[in-house]
Order: sequence, then C-alpha cells, then structure tokens
Amino acid sequence: MSHPGFGVLKEEPDETLFRLFFEPAVGEGLPRSLSGLLRVDAAHVLALERSGALPLATAALLLAENRRLGAELEAGRDPLPIPPRHRGLYSIYEAHLVARLGVEVGGAGHLGRSRNDLNAALTRLRLRAELLDTLDAGQVFLEALLAQVPRHLDTVMAGFSQLQPAQPSTLAHYLAGVGFALLRDLEWLSATYPEVNRSPLGAAAGFGSSVPLPRERVAEWLGFEGLVESSLDAVASRDYGLRVLSAGALCATTLTRLASDFLGWAGPGCAFLDWPDRLVGTSSMMPQKRNPFVLEVLRGRAGQVSGALAGMLADLKGTPFSNSVEVSSEATAHLWRALPALRGSLELAGLLVAQLRVDARRMEAWMAGRATAATALAEWLSRSQGPSFRAAYSVVAAAVRDLEGDLESIPRLAERLAALLAEKGGERPPLAEAAIRDALEPRAAVARARYGGGPAPEAVERQLAALREGADRLVRDAAERRRRLAAADSQLRAAIDQAVQKGTS
Amino acid sequence: MSHPGFGVLKEEPDETLFRLFFEPAVGEGLPRSLSGLLRVDAAHVLALERSGALPLATAALLLAENRRLGAELEAGRDPLPIPPRHRGLYSIYEAHLVARLGVEVGGAGHLGRSRNDLNAALTRLRLRAELLDTLDAGQVFLEALLAQVPRHLDTVMAGFSQLQPAQPSTLAHYLAGVGFALLRDLEWLSATYPEVNRSPLGAAAGFGSSVPLPRERVAEWLGFEGLVESSLDAVASRDYGLRVLSAGALCATTLTRLASDFLGWAGPGCAFLDWPDRLVGTSSMMPQKRNPFVLEVLRGRAGQVSGALAGMLADLKGTPFSNSVEVSSEATAHLWRALPALRGSLELAGLLVAQLRVDARRMEAWMAGRATAATALAEWLSRSQGPSFRAAYSVVAAAVRDLEGDLESIPRLAERLAALLAEKGGERPPLAEAAIRDALEPRAAVARARYGGGPAPEAVERQLAALREGADRLVRDAAERRRRLAAADSQLRAAIDQAVQKGTS
Amino acid sequence: MSHPGFGVLKEEPDETLFRLFFEPAVGEGLPRSLSGLLRVDAAHVLALERSGALPLATAALLLAENRRLGAELEAGRDPLPIPPRHRGLYSIYEAHLVARLGVEVGGAGHLGRSRNDLNAALTRLRLRAELLDTLDAGQVFLEALLAQVPRHLDTVMAGFSQLQPAQPSTLAHYLAGVGFALLRDLEWLSATYPEVNRSPLGAAAGFGSSVPLPRERVAEWLGFEGLVESSLDAVASRDYGLRVLSAGALCATTLTRLASDFLGWAGPGCAFLDWPDRLVGTSSMMPQKRNPFVLEVLRGRAGQVSGALAGMLADLKGTPFSNSVEVSSEATAHLWRALPALRGSLELAGLLVAQLRVDARRMEAWMAGRATAATALAEWLSRSQGPSFRAAYSVVAAAVRDLEGDLESIPRLAERLAALLAEKGGERPPLAEAAIRDALEPRAAVARARYGGGPAPEAVERQLAALREGADRLVRDAAERRRRLAAADSQLRAAIDQAVQKGTS
Amino acid sequence: MSHPGFGVLKEEPDETLFRLFFEPAVGEGLPRSLSGLLRVDAAHVLALERSGALPLATAALLLAENRRLGAELEAGRDPLPIPPRHRGLYSIYEAHLVARLGVEVGGAGHLGRSRNDLNAALTRLRLRAELLDTLDAGQVFLEALLAQVPRHLDTVMAGFSQLQPAQPSTLAHYLAGVGFALLRDLEWLSATYPEVNRSPLGAAAGFGSSVPLPRERVAEWLGFEGLVESSLDAVASRDYGLRVLSAGALCATTLTRLASDFLGWAGPGCAFLDWPDRLVGTSSMMPQKRNPFVLEVLRGRAGQVSGALAGMLADLKGTPFSNSVEVSSEATAHLWRALPALRGSLELAGLLVAQLRVDARRMEAWMAGRATAATALAEWLSRSQGPSFRAAYSVVAAAVRDLEGDLESIPRLAERLAALLAEKGGERPPLAEAAIRDALEPRAAVARARYGGGPAPEAVERQLAALREGADRLVRDAAERRRRLAAADSQLRAAIDQAVQKGTS
Repeated sequence: MSHPGFGVLKEEPDETLFRLFFEPAVGEGLPRSLSGLLRVDAAHVLALERSGALPLATAALLLAENRRLGAELEAGRDPLPIPPRHRGLYSIYEAHLVARLGVEVGGAGHLGRSRNDLNAALTRLRLRAELLDTLDAGQVFLEALLAQVPRHLDTVMAGFSQLQPAQPSTLAHYLAGVGFALLRDLEWLSATYPEVNRSPLGAAAGFGSSVPLPRERVAEWLGFEGLVESSLDAVASRDYGLRVLSAGALCATTLTRLASDFLGWAGPGCAFLDWPDRLVGTSSMMPQKRNPFVLEVLRGRAGQVSGALAGMLADLKGTPFSNSVEVSSEATAHLWRALPALRGSLELAGLLVAQLRVDARRMEAWMAGRATAATALAEWLSRSQGPSFRAAYSVVAAAVRDLEGDLESIPRLAERLAALLAEKGGERPPLAEAAIRDALEPRAAVARARYGGGPAPEAVERQLAALREGADRLVRDAAERRRRLAAADSQLRAAIDQAVQKGTS
Repeated sequence: MSHPGFGVLKEEPDETLFRLFFEPAVGEGLPRSLSGLLRVDAAHVLALERSGALPLATAALLLAENRRLGAELEAGRDPLPIPPRHRGLYSIYEAHLVARLGVEVGGAGHLGRSRNDLNAALTRLRLRAELLDTLDAGQVFLEALLAQVPRHLDTVMAGFSQLQPAQPSTLAHYLAGVGFALLRDLEWLSATYPEVNRSPLGAAAGFGSSVPLPRERVAEWLGFEGLVESSLDAVASRDYGLRVLSAGALCATTLTRLASDFLGWAGPGCAFLDWPDRLVGTSSMMPQKRNPFVLEVLRGRAGQVSGALAGMLADLKGTPFSNSVEVSSEATAHLWRALPALRGSLELAGLLVAQLRVDARRMEAWMAGRATAATALAEWLSRSQGPSFRAAYSVVAAAVRDLEGDLESIPRLAERLAALLAEKGGERPPLAEAAIRDALEPRAAVARARYGGGPAPEAVERQLAALREGADRLVRDAAERRRRLAAADSQLRAAIDQAVQKGTS
Repeated sequence: MSHPGFGVLKEEPDETLFRLFFEPAVGEGLPRSLSGLLRVDAAHVLALERSGALPLATAALLLAENRRLGAELEAGRDPLPIPPRHRGLYSIYEAHLVARLGVEVGGAGHLGRSRNDLNAALTRLRLRAELLDTLDAGQVFLEALLAQVPRHLDTVMAGFSQLQPAQPSTLAHYLAGVGFALLRDLEWLSATYPEVNRSPLGAAAGFGSSVPLPRERVAEWLGFEGLVESSLDAVASRDYGLRVLSAGALCATTLTRLASDFLGWAGPGCAFLDWPDRLVGTSSMMPQKRNPFVLEVLRGRAGQVSGALAGMLADLKGTPFSNSVEVSSEATAHLWRALPALRGSLELAGLLVAQLRVDARRMEAWMAGRATAATALAEWLSRSQGPSFRAAYSVVAAAVRDLEGDLESIPRLAERLAALLAEKGGERPPLAEAAIRDALEPRAAVARARYGGGPAPEAVERQLAALREGADRLVRDAAERRRRLAAADSQLRAAIDQAVQKGTS
Repeated sequence: MSHPGFGVLKEEPDETLFRLFFEPAVGEGLPRSLSGLLRVDAAHVLALERSGALPLATAALLLAENRRLGAELEAGRDPLPIPPRHRGLYSIYEAHLVARLGVEVGGAGHLGRSRNDLNAALTRLRLRAELLDTLDAGQVFLEALLAQVPRHLDTVMAGFSQLQPAQPSTLAHYLAGVGFALLRDLEWLSATYPEVNRSPLGAAAGFGSSVPLPRERVAEWLGFEGLVESSLDAVASRDYGLRVLSAGALCATTLTRLASDFLGWAGPGCAFLDWPDRLVGTSSMMPQKRNPFVLEVLRGRAGQVSGALAGMLADLKGTPFSNSVEVSSEATAHLWRALPALRGSLELAGLLVAQLRVDARRMEAWMAGRATAATALAEWLSRSQGPSFRAAYSVVAAAVRDLEGDLESIPRLAERLAALLAEKGGERPPLAEAAIRDALEPRAAVARARYGGGPAPEAVERQLAALREGADRLVRDAAERRRRLAAADSQLRAAIDQAVQKGTS
C-alpha cells in the first residue's frame, strides 16, 4: 500500500464523499463499534489459527494487540487515532495493526473474511444489544402497568367505545386490556431475537471460503445462537432488522393508543387522571396550565419508528440479493434512530403509569346522567320480563330518548318502561323499582360482567394472572439471554488469553 | 323498530353517508362475509342455548333459518335481499330474521353480543382464510425455487456483490440463498396465524357479559385456537393484522430483490435468463422487444403491501383503546387489498421460477475477462507463497491494475506477480503457471468454496437439505391447520343439526 | 398476426398471468378507459393525417369507427367485445379495428406511437378528471366551513392548547383556523393540475419519432395545456401522481385533526356538538348510544391516502428512468384508490360541518372553573399594576395554585393577588374587584384579542374575508379548467367530424 | 419563581424526562437555535416598545443584552451556561435575562407572546435556511447535469425501455430527460418557500393578543414574507414541513432512478460509465473490485426522506388543531434528519455527474446485434413500401424471430423482408439494400428522431434551452431570496442599535 488509496484504488476518497459517508459512519458511537469489531476480529483470528491457516505466533501477536486495544477502550481511553481521511472503521483498524505489527502480521488476519460478513456481524451485535435494552424498558413499563391493576379492581368508571360512554367498567379492566396488547407486542419483539442472533461469519464476501474456519466455534465465542446457512443470505439479508422495526412500530403505536385515552381522561372534560409536577409541563404565558405533555411525546415519537419502518422497506425494495451499501449501511441506519426512540417512549410510558394519580371518586361520579347502564337494563328486561333482547333493547332505547338520557329517576323510568312494554304487547304488571335500581347500579353491573373477559374484579384477577405469566416469561427469557451472552464473552476472553500465552511463550 | 332508524335513531343514514360507507362495506364480497356471519351467529345461538339464556325452541328456529340461508349461499344463490338503505350486513341479517321469525324469535339471538365482538370475529375469520391462501402461494413458489437448486449445482456463474462481478459461484447457490430469505419470510408470516386465530367472541361491546356463555365451546366450533382474554382487548386490537402486513411487506420486498437480479440477468448485458413467450411481453411499436415485464410487476406490486402497512400504522396511531370504526373498519381495509396483491406476486414469482430458462454456457463464458478469480489468486499466493493475505492482496491488486483486469494470459500474469512479489521482498523463484491456472479456474474455485455456506456443490446440497426441512414444516403446518378448520366446521354443522332436530321435534 | 401471440411472441399470456395482470387492468372501469383511449387515438389519427403520414381516406375510416364506438359508449352500450385472453385494452381495440377495417386501415393508426406514450396520456386524462372532482368535493367542504364562521363569531368557548383549556375563544375562530389549513391544502392540490395536464403524446416509446406529428395540436384537442419536452421524461415520469398524493395525504390528515377536535367536543366530557340522527350511528347492543362515527371514518380513511403515498414512493424507488410496468401500471395504481378515498372524506366532512349542531350555552358554561382567563388576568396585572409580565404571571400562577384553580370568587381572588404582589414588592393598595371581574370575563377577553389573528369577532371577520378570497379563487380556477376542457373536446369532435366528412365524400 | 419549578409547577422535570426530552432538544445545534431565538426575541421586544407596551428604557436593556449574546455567539463563544436541569432553551434564556437584569426588566419581554408562536417561528427560520441550502445543492447538481448534455449530443447509445434495448438514442437525451424531472422536483421544492416563510408571530398561544403588536413590522425584521392570518393556524400547523418533505422525498426518489440506470451502465454487462478512484470503493478481500458505491448510497439514502415523510404524516394524524408537543416538536423532528440526508444525496449526485467518465465507443459498439433499429426498419417499410405500420411491424417481428435478432447482415435481412412481404401480399420487387442499411444505421435513426422530444441533437438542444431557462430561474430566485434575508437582517440590527442608543442615552 505505497499509494494513499487502497488495493486497485490510487486515490483517497473525495473530500465531500468522506464528509458525507465515511466520517459520520465512524464518528457516531466509535467506542461501541470498535468494541464489537475487536471481539469479532479476535474470534476470526482464533478461528484462522485453529483451522491451520495462521501460525500460532502470528495469531498471538494479533490477539495481544486486540486485547490491549480492548483494555484501553474499557478504561475509557480512545485507543485508535482517527486519520484525517479514511475508508471506515475497519480500514483504520487494519492500518493500525499493519503500522504496529508490520504487514506480515498485521495484514494476516483478513484471510477468509470480508468487510461484508464482518459488517453483517457488527450490525447483529449492535442490534442484539439495542433489542435487549429495549425489551428491558418494555418490561419495566409492563411491570408498572401490572402493578396498577390490583389497585384499581374496584375503581369503577365508564367504559368507553367510539369515545362515548358505553358500559360500566373499571380502571383495572382498562389497564389489563392494554397490558395484553403490550405483552403481545413485547413478545413479538422478543421473538425476533433468535433471528437477530445468528452468525453470518464465515460468509466472507457472500461466497464462503476455502479456509476451513470453524463457524460454530466463532458463533459461540460471540454469543450467536445459530448460523446463517448460506453465505449469500448472510451478507445480503437484513430482514431481522425489519422485523425488529415492525414489532417496534406496533409497540410504539400501542403506546399512542394508551396515550390518547389518558389525554382524554386527564383532560378537563373528565379530569380522572393527573401526574406530579415533575411529569407535567406548564405554559410560559398561561399561568393556569398543567399539560400532561409527555403523553403527546408518546403519540408523536411513534412516527420515528413507523417512519423508520417505511424508510427501511423503501431502502430494501429492489436491491440486489447480495452485499450492497444500500442494504448494509443505508437500510440499517434507520434502526439506530428508531430503537432509542422506542426505548425512550417505553421509559416515559413506564414513568407515567407508575406515577399515575387517579381520582376514583370523580370517575364514579362522572357516570351520573350518562346512561351507561342502559345495556344492563335491557338485559334485565329481557331476562326477567320475557321480551327478546331486541324488543327489550327497543324499549330501553325509546325510554332513553323519551327521558333525554336521564335514567336516574327510577320511578319515572319504571313507569316509562312499563308503558313502552305495554305498547308492544298488551297489559303488563308494573316493574319493581328495586330491581331496576339494582340493574342500573354500576358496581353491580360490573360485578355481573364476569364472562367473556369482562371487568368483574374476579375476572380481571384471572386476566392479571395470565398477564403475570407472560411478563414473567419475558423476564426469564431476558435474563437467560444476558447470562448466555456473558458466558460467551468469558469464553472468548479465555481463548484469547490462552492463545496469547501459548503463542508468545 | 317502528321508525326507519334504529334504536335511539329516528332516521336512516344520510344518502351520501350510505353511498360512501354502508353500501361498499356490504357490496364487496357479500357471499364471503355472509358465510362468516352465519357461522358466527350459529355458534352464538348455540352458546346462548347451552348457557340457558335461550329456550331450545327459539334457538332451533334461529338455527334452522341460519342453516337454510347457508344452504342457499352454498348453492350459489343470493339468500338475503339487500334493502335500498341499511346500516351494514348485520343489520340486514337481523332485520331478515325479525321479518321472517318475528321479533321475539328473530330478535332473540343478540343477547350477550355486540357487533363489536361479531365484527372482530369476522375480521379474524376472513384474515385466517386469506393468510392460509397466501401461505399456500408462498409454498408453491418456494417449491419451484427448491426444484431449481439441484438442477443448477454446477451452473457456474459470476457471483455478484454491489452489482459487480465478485467471485465464482453457481446459480444454485444464488437460488438457495434467496430460498432461505423467503423461507424465513414465510415462517414469519405463518407465525402470525396463532394470534390471528383467537376468538374475541363473548367480549360483546368490550365489557364482557353477565350471560355465562361458553367461550371455549364457541371458539372450538369456529376453529379458533385460543381466546382473547380481555374483552376490551378483544374489540380494540387489530395488531394481528399489522403483523400479517409486516410479514407480507417483508416477503413482497424479498421478491423485489429476486426480481431485480433476474431483470439484470435477463437484460442484454448478461442474457443469462429467459422465459417462454407466454410469460413475456413485447412492444406494440418495437418489433424486436421481449420484455420480462412480470419481474417489473413483482417489483411494483410490493408497494401495495408496504403502502398498506404504512397506512394501517397511521390508522391505528392515536386511536382510543376500545372499539372504534377507525380501527375495526378503516384500519383493517388495508388487509383486503394487500393480501391478494401479495398472493398474486407469489403466484407470479412461482411461475417465473418454474419456467425459467437458463443459458448456462453464456453464464460461464461471461466470466472471461472479469477477474472474478482475483480473490482465489490472492489466497493461493498467500497460502502457497508465504505473504500475509493483505500483502498478497496488494500484489494481485497491482497486477489487476497493470494488466487492466486481464488475468487470462497466464505467463504474463505469472511474470507480473513474480515481479511484484520481488518488489516487496527480495528475490523470488518464478511462479508455477499450472498452479496459477488452477487457482484461477472458476469451477475449481467454486469447488474449494466449501466453507461458510459457500457455493461448492456439496455445500449447496447441505443448504438445500435445510431448506427442504423448513419447507416441509410449512407444508405440514398448513395441512394440519386446514384439517383442524374442517373438523371444527363439521362439529358446528353437527351441533346445528342436532339442536334443530331436538328443538323442532 | 397469424399466431395467437403478438409480434415476436408466439403464445398468448399465461393463464395465471392473464388473471392477475391483464384481466383486472381492463376489468375495472372499462367505459372510462375506453373513452379516454378513443379520444387519444382520434387525436393521433388526425395528427398523422395532418403530418402527411396517413392518407385522408384511411384516417377517415379510422375516425368514423372511433366515432361510432364513442357513440355506443355514450349510449351506455358496451361497444368492444372482450376476448377471453388478451394483452390489455389497446390490444383489444386495435384487434377490433383490424378485424373491422382490415390490417391496412385498422393497423395504420399506430405509426409514430407506442403504448408507452398512449398509457402515459391515459393516466393523465384519468388523473385530471379525478383531481377536478376531488377539488370540487374540497370546495363544497370549504364552503360549508365558511358558512359556519359568521354564525359563530360570538359563540364563545374555551380555546384549547395541548388538549387543555387555554384561553377564551370562539367557535368561529376555530373553524376559520382550520379553514386556512384546508384552503392551503386545496391550493396545493390545485397547484398540481398544470403538471398533471401536460401532453406526453408524440414521445412514442420514449425516443420520439421521425414522423412530424403536430404535438401542440394533439395537446389542444385533448385539453392538455403544455407539453412534456423530453420524450424520455414523458414516458418515464409519474411525479405528478406523487404530487397529487402528497397534497391529498396532507389534506386527508388535516381532516383527521378537525375530526379529533370534533370527537372531543362531541364527547361526553364536553358535549358541545351534535349531529342529526342520519349522520350518527348507534349500537346494536347499547340502547343509549349515539356515535358520531363519521368522524372516525375521517380519521381512519386518511391512512388510505398516506399509505398510497408511501406505496407509490416505494414503487418509484430505484426504477429505471424510462418506461416500465413498475412505474406506469403499478406505481399509478395507488392513485385510483387514494383519490376516491380522499374525495369521500371531503364529502363526509362537508356533510358533518354543514349539519353541525352547536350547544353554544353549554360551550360558554363549561368555561366556569377552568381558569381560561388567567392569562388575561396576568396581562391586566402587568399592564395596570406595573410588574413585568413574568412577575405578574408568577403572582397569578401562585393564586391559581392557592385557590385550586377557582378564579371565580372575585373578592377572595383580589385579596390573594394583593397579598402575593405585596410579597414581591412591599406595600400595595387593594386591587379593584370590578377591574378584575372585567379582566376575567371571557367575552371581554375575546373582544380584546384583536391582534395577531386572534378570536375577536372583528379579527375573525378579516380572516373570513381572506378565506373567502382564497375559496373564490379555487372556484374560479375550477370553472375555468372545466370550461377549457369542454372547449377542447368540442374542437376534437369537430375535427373528427370534418375529417370523416372530407375523407369519405 | 422562588421554587425550582416554574409557574404552577413546584418541581423540576423528572430526571428521565429531562434526559429524554429537554436535554436533547437543547443539545443538538444550540448555536443555531440560540441565534434564531435572539433574533426573534429582539424583534418582539422592538415590537412591544413600538406598541407602547414596554418603556424604551426597558426595551433598550433587553436589546443590549440580546446584542451582547449575539456578538458572543458570532465570535464562536458559548454565551449561555446550560443549567443541569431545565425546561428547554427559552426557559434558559429568560432565566438568564432575569438573573442578569432582574425580573422587572428580564421578565418584561414575554408579554403578548408564548413559546407556541416563538417555537413556530424558530421552526420556520430553521427550515427556511435548510431549504435554501438544499436548493443550492440541487442547483449544483442540475448544473453538473446540464454541463454534460452538450458534450454528449452525439454520444450514441441504446435507449432502453423496461431495461431492454429499445431504440437508438444518445446520452445527452437521457441526461436531459432526467434533468427535466429534477428541475420539476426542485421547482416543487422551491415553491414551498413562500409558505415556509410566513410569520406566525403575534399568535401567542394560538389566541392572539390584546397588545397591538405590529405583526407586519416583526415579520419584515425577520425576513418573513407574509403572515399567518389566524393565530390558531399559526401555532397548530406544520403543513409547510410536510410539503418540504414531500418534495424532498420525490427529489430523492428521482435520484434513485438515475442511480439505478448508472449502476446498470457502470456494471460489467455494459461498462459504459466509470468514475475516478476517489469516487469509487474497492473490496478489502477481492482485489479486482471497483464499486461505484456512491450510487448505492443515493438509492439507500432516499429512504431517510421517504421514511421521514411517512413518519411525519403519522405524527400529524389525529392531532388536535392547536398547539401540541406532538406537532411542534415530534412531527418536525423528521425534518432535521431528512433535509441533510437529501442535501447530501444532491451533493453526491452532483459529484458523480460532474466527474463522470463515458466510454462512448463502447456505448456505440454495444448496440451491435441488439436490433434497436427494428422500429426504424418497420417505419421505413411502412412509409416506403406501403403496408400499414402494423403490417410492417409484423414483417419485421417475423424477420427478427427468423434471424434470431441479427439484423446486421443486410442481404440476408433484405431477402427475408421481401419474402415476408410477399407472403402478405403477392409479388414484391426486391428491397434496396442501401435503403435498409440507412434505415438501420443508429446515428441516422437518431438524427431522424427530431419530433416529440426525441434524441436528435437539434431536438436535445431545444430541450437543453428549456432546461437552462428553468435552471436560471431557480438560481435567480435563490439569489433574490438570500438578498432579501440579508437586507432584513441588516434592518433588524439597525433597529436594535437605534433602540439601544436611544434607550440608554
């Protein structure tokens, strides 16, 4: 490499190209990417040595330098000087090795490897870490939600449908319902992990190698669980990233639904919910304002994730099925913005749910005059007085219309119902006011809604148990995954130490 | 219902509203939606009867009419007259029952149910069928792909990366690589089935019911495997639809990648691939044209699926977590367009792969002068002559530059390599031309690429075996699902027959 | 054409390909596409004749048949029999001409033309019509909005920000604000018309022609205003479609914002708005329900348009810049679904605004206890009592906190403010209660908000005048465009008649 | 403000909330946002003074500090210390003023203003600058494209359609065609400027103000051209951002099409194009590789813009039409990522076009054997020998089929054509070989394609003139806009200086 270019190229990258492509690729998050690179490179050098393609002595020199750089990095120092013009992190790294160890040692480690499989591996390592962190944030949020459910089994409120008061329910029923949606989202996100965590290494430029590298061993050292079978697929595919974004976009969208309901219930028309000062905003101009603006952040930030998904799909569309910058760099760039956004949303949602203040009295009082028990009344009429459900429904609808929605004056209601029933089918005895009162009572209606996943406290407790089980499974999976990653890392370090010791003694 | 409205409403829907909302909802695909409705309604009536909420005699009358309508439908007749103004299919159906059986029988079946859980169930039934059909089309395509692999294990061609000739490979290796991507896409799509196939029935308007309906039994009759635990979640969530679209968009996008490569290889610069006349187009103006335009259809139709995904995400964003038309009708509308588009793409892709014509001689001849063996040469140099890979790479790069990419004149190449090596490190013996020739030979290079998932025939055979296993699993799953659905349907029909017989005798 | 294929092709399209591609392309909307085809073909034949490339007698025979088919079509008859297998509408049409007039006449009209420029022209004709219809629906909606503004200049209500009560405002101010957003959206949509309405004809397959066709004349006959200068651009580009979708998606999104506010205000926490029975829905289960569900339709249907935009962008991405099916058929398919969806939304929104019922008393009463005048109080304090705005703001904020948001008991408030002011800066005289009362009065606050585009009735009247001007401009433009199209059509018919008469006499 | 909160809030923002929301908002690009804030604040203080709401002395103190901070900033110093916990930039700024000037001066400048209109203005200022810079990059690219056109008027190449050789064309014709598409995209982008550049100031929190602020004057000082008429619209709308993204996404997508064609033509099947070493990449493993990877970057980076558009649409969907964080912060966040991505793509595309190396000889030679003159042959046959175009087309198609695409052996071709013509219609004289040769000659065919925007050099020169005119208009508009902005800034500075001098003397 006597010219400033590389290989067949005699020139350095154009200045503008450098500024717009190579520089930012290295700039953002160098410590993290270098840490991944060192691990992947160490595993490859070990593999070369084990396959007989590299003398132990050479491998040991490479690994010793690798270990030294890793130690610098862990000590918070910047181990690699960045030259003013370069072709990305790997080129800096290899140039460093060559400068330090000479080309016959420093240039020996790239046999049977390409930046194609290397970058594919680094993307997976980074995404794996992001994914686990995001799932953690999701679990914290889910726990916060589940912790609220038992507190609000008896917090009666109007259940809504189409944003109108529908039937009596409880806050616990609402939170459990959202909890199931969120659990599914997290399970779907978690289910992407095995695909993310496969090793593409050994694929080289997409056409494998004549070097008998022990792929399974390399994968184990790096904590990968499984291989990508085809070398072409290994460098061409980033579908796992799209899966993560799909699940992430769904999860972020579920949060916007919770946020919308909470915004409505925290709004002045309901005023059921509130948060401590540290979680709300005010206005610089309007002195009375208390804005639960974090809910707006939740709604808005979802667009970061769904936009990333749309962008990544457009990026992948029509690309060749082989390695390309379009896929390996540009299409994956969306991931690194979307996952922190999702994680932040989950953290914020967790805060909001954990610190929620509920005005249970206002929730219950608000039901007055809103006829949420009309369905219960129709069911009672049908089941106690004989008409079919539709006939009873029509009678109640007529009563609601005639009484302008006011079902609370029981004698008047009883009279009206009796009259309407009589219109339908001849004489009827007067209706028992006590029975009507009982049918209309919201708590009683809630207690009766035991079937079909309804809000009766005992039913919600069953729902909570199912949620609990799902949440525990997520927690166990996360712990097990982290445990296996740590174990793999220890193995890799031990193998490096052993090779260095043997090769330099 | 003495007025033309319904319940509290005294008026029919506005004419414009009818034209834009109610009419198209019923118009498209009435037979399919009515068939679903009949099954769901029958299961509900049976459940009401079993729970004691409906006398057997009433249930039998309802079920007899249900069965009659189903028979009409299966006979290809239009059993339900559509009135000039209505509020959707269920309203037409119930009005028909009331007209035929009187309000006390015809109006008895809606106890403990709402259109909310009913529609949620119909969406799942329809999506389940669409999903299974789409998976079938995917399997046909995958089979076509797998059938080509053994035929082309020795069809040597330039492997590409970044659209440039990279290293020697085979068509089988390419097809197997795409096969893995497609298999994963189909597996991901298939994995949505258990979530799609859960029963929301019993949830009523989202708040369950006081009627002790046997939810599990209803689910069984309808072929659902599992329940949605929370009644709110049951009517609020359509996340399963979004999962199907996500997997579908990914799958459609994978097809665009295959299509892009095939377009390039069918294009005049390569001319490796061709299709019979019945799969190509020509021009109405340019008499020489043979356009493999179906590949363009594959590329373009993906936008139907990815656009539907973006649209559904936007639709779900910020909606209340409860029943709403926004979610239940509008957000799901994307599914019914996207899935047929995806299915069509899979069918077309299957055709193209099955009827592919390969010009293997041209593929091999095309490699001449394109230096795809440069990597093999560098590896051979490094492994036989001692320099590190990077040093050998630099020597080969310099030779490529000096010889303007022509590596085919072996004596000239040998001389150049020796000279370059000598520049690096003193005297060197001349290089054996036979060894160089062997290193450069594409078939030999392919045969050596046995590791890392490379194109060596034996390696691709291993890849094929893994693909075969995955494909077989998909086929088995599909068969088992269809078997279980048919069994459930038989059970439902038997239960209807039995109830009708018992209730009318 | 002695074989069933076409040109170099000896076979008909594959059955599956036919079912999935050619059949649906002709199936949907044949009358409309045939009508466009007839006009474009007539203009081309006239142009061939004028350029000397076609004898008048031949042209006359072609035009006579063209005219006959047009008359059939206008009479509601289906003039072209669709063969069981074909290659799209143009192939059916030309085959019909050849069958009827012989190949020497029927096959003469395609000189200097390709389906590429033909289809490009048909897309523009169709989109032009869709666009004008959509703008009409937009104007109807805008008129409905503008008609409400003068009715509600004094309908005082809480203005909201971040979904919390902010400052006193009026319904007219809100509607005018939305009106401006909508006017801009429609103006942006309307501004796409000149680009849509350019003629690509003469471009042939993208490489122009050696036939001196009078392009300007062809454009005039078809109502196009301007040419696409480059033949390649003419067949390659569909950017005008993307512009229409962009403006459409924005417009549909603005409607979702109006719908969200209306949903909140029609909801039980506010109950400011309502609609007649014919525009609301109810529940089949809950007898009390009145659901303004059309608002949900508005929110949900926007996803059809934004999804189409995302899909079309993905479709265009990475396509060759020349004619392709991917661009000409697949990418434009999104338009034909999205524009009717947008048009429907505008129609529904127009209905909702025109038939809006406002409970002005409730709007005003609802402000009690919600401290929307706190800003006015701080401004009054600052401007009458001397402290800086921030100091006054702090005093009012402290009072709001101390009085728990109740600013309506004036003596208590006056005392609290005086005490807080005193804390800040020594002795203060007591504050005049009458002045405080006046500062807090919502109507007075509205009347004072004359600046910066605020809600004072005189200010909203000025806003309305600006809206009126914009709306009138849209109406004038639409009328002028339709007038010019009708004139062009008359010219074309006259030219056909004249040529037929001269050529057959 | 004796407590660490603000107004009614007694607490600082939660730590997590601070980290995820307030900190990053200030962190990224503080100098730019502070610079905007200082200008907007100065204009507001001047306006308050002119309206009589602020004494000159107070205004002068505020403006002097404002000017001092601006000077610090211009000198590259960090003038504002960032406290460890805050509520965004404005809160830091005002706290600084209060700390330095006391609450009676430092707290006086926010009268008649809110962060709502302030932030709306800052977003517009920032977007205006980004937009102008992006248009500049677009112009540079367009100039590079236009500069290539006259160089390649005679660079004959196969024109393509559907990725197949279609008809003879020139590189100039291709570049001019893309030039028109790009010009339209830039014009559409440029057309967003007037909407971006309107002043929302004076709108305060969305409900205007009782302070008679001179809005027009404020707008002039800040270079805004026009006002937002409604205060609600002013704080609620960000549609101008969506327009910028729409035009940006279209423009980025047009670049992907150019990139795809260039990738094909730089690929090994064509090898028409190349670039200097500084604009290509190589492989770390494959020594022969020259990858024009910047083209892949262009294709991939478009997803940043189209994803941002999808994300912003989702963010805006269903938001209230008033100020919200969802709209003002989250929805606009997409802009700040997408525009630099687009700008970078335009810069890179400009580089690639300017430094393009064309192998004209290979382009021409490549046409041999590819029958691109078949259309010309059919036209010649039809016009010279009498058969209709379709009849002639069929004859040529049959000849192409019979001769397997080889039209270059003229005697054989002449014989075949004569035979085929004879089959159609009796005896025919032999065809003149010279005439056939001339009809088939690519350069002659190009020269004949003078009509319909074709590739004849004289026609492309006309196209170039039209492009030139459009490009010049863009340049003039840009210069005029920058001139007006600079003039406004001078006016503002002069007004500040004058007020400070008068108020402190």
